[in-house]
Amino acid sequence: MRRVVELPRAYRLLNHGPTVLVSAAHAGRRNIMAASWSMALDFAPPKVAVVIDKSTYTRGLVEASGSFALNVPCRAQAAATLAVGGSSGRDLPADEDKFAAFGLQSFAGSVLDVPLLEGCVAWLECRVLDEPHNQQRYDLFIGEVVAAWADTRVFADGRWITDPALDPALRTIHYVAGGQFFATGEAFDTQAAPPLRG
Amino acid sequence: MRRVVELPRAYRLLNHGPTVLVSAAHAGRRNIMAASWSMALDFAPPKVAVVIDKSTYTRGLVEASGSFALNVPCRAQAAATLAVGGSSGRDLPADEDKFAAFGLQSFAGSVLDVPLLEGCVAWLECRVLDEPHNQQRYDLFIGEVVAAWADTRVFADGRWITDPALDPALRTIHYVAGGQFFATGEAFDTQAAPPLRG
Repeated sequence: MRRVVELPRAYRLLNHGPTVLVSAAHAGRRNIMAASWSMALDFAPPKVAVVIDKSTYTRGLVEASGSFALNVPCRAQAAATLAVGGSSGRDLPADEDKFAAFGLQSFAGSVLDVPLLEGCVAWLECRVLDEPHNQQRYDLFIGEVVAAWADTRVFADGRWITDPALDPALRTIHYVAGGQFFATGEAFDTQAAPPLRG
Repeated sequence: MRRVVELPRAYRLLNHGPTVLVSAAHAGRRNIMAASWSMALDFAPPKVAVVIDKSTYTRGLVEASGSFALNVPCRAQAAATLAVGGSSGRDLPADEDKFAAFGLQSFAGSVLDVPLLEGCVAWLECRVLDEPHNQQRYDLFIGEVVAAWADTRVFADGRWITDPALDPALRTIHYVAGGQFFATGEAFDTQAAPPLRG
């Protein structure tokens, strides 16, 4: 079940560094791409940073609409993540998009006009904070998170569920290279080492 | 054994989103802090982005020296990661630093005057690309990676070693909250789903 994530906890959806999918829409066109380079940038109001290359079709939609979503895929979606990461919306006919081409279902953002990918385990709806220098020079986009959602099987009460019995197909993923990912692994608790002195 | 990572492969050290330690030195003072919010920003020359809060002692050293290092800790260092993340170099006497306080060994950067933490599995020496607006408004620092290193037990020939037999203590870590981390988990290969149409 999808449930709202309180905004001051939204950074936790990205804190452990999962690979994300960036989606956007404008004027009847929409697209989705993969991004290994994203991170949380602030707690409240929550902000994120993500790299969106100039060559991508998604970038034009983000710039035109001023909105994007970060979708956090799970292991069951690794093939779809590679598929949308390895193809461009530019190469599709005008009446098609990657959602249709790859048989991906979406649902509408709650606040922004962004397509959210069904089957992901978390979603962040982001409004672009206009930073032309960063966008042009570094392909770096900064967004304010205006709504966040998570699948309650994996994230509830503001925290990732770290139960070892969690279905491995629902674990988040971390791209390595060449079609290979790491799954998010075992959770463990740590006690900070006490200072040796003073 | 530590070996140089070719610069065009340096982004791979961060691509899967591990928690890092940011270290810096200036005028005889040095410090190290934990950061969940970092990412690769470019391939070649490689760049990184990292959030360094204004309240941190590390920040002053980064601003004064124009340099920082990202150290990638492994599970064996989770307690040290929490320790340096939960304390400030500001609170230590002038003749002490966190390395001494927590019994941490360091070695010198090869290009920059940055202290690198022994026992980590990868290191990136970074020169700050001066972006005062980002630094002031978002606590966001952009660095060019001028040297990178990895422990050949976990990263060799430009890739993370994904052998399931890898010592769990050498796996990288991903901070969750409240003293809890995820270990980097199982690696898996994926075939992109073929397009359903066209």
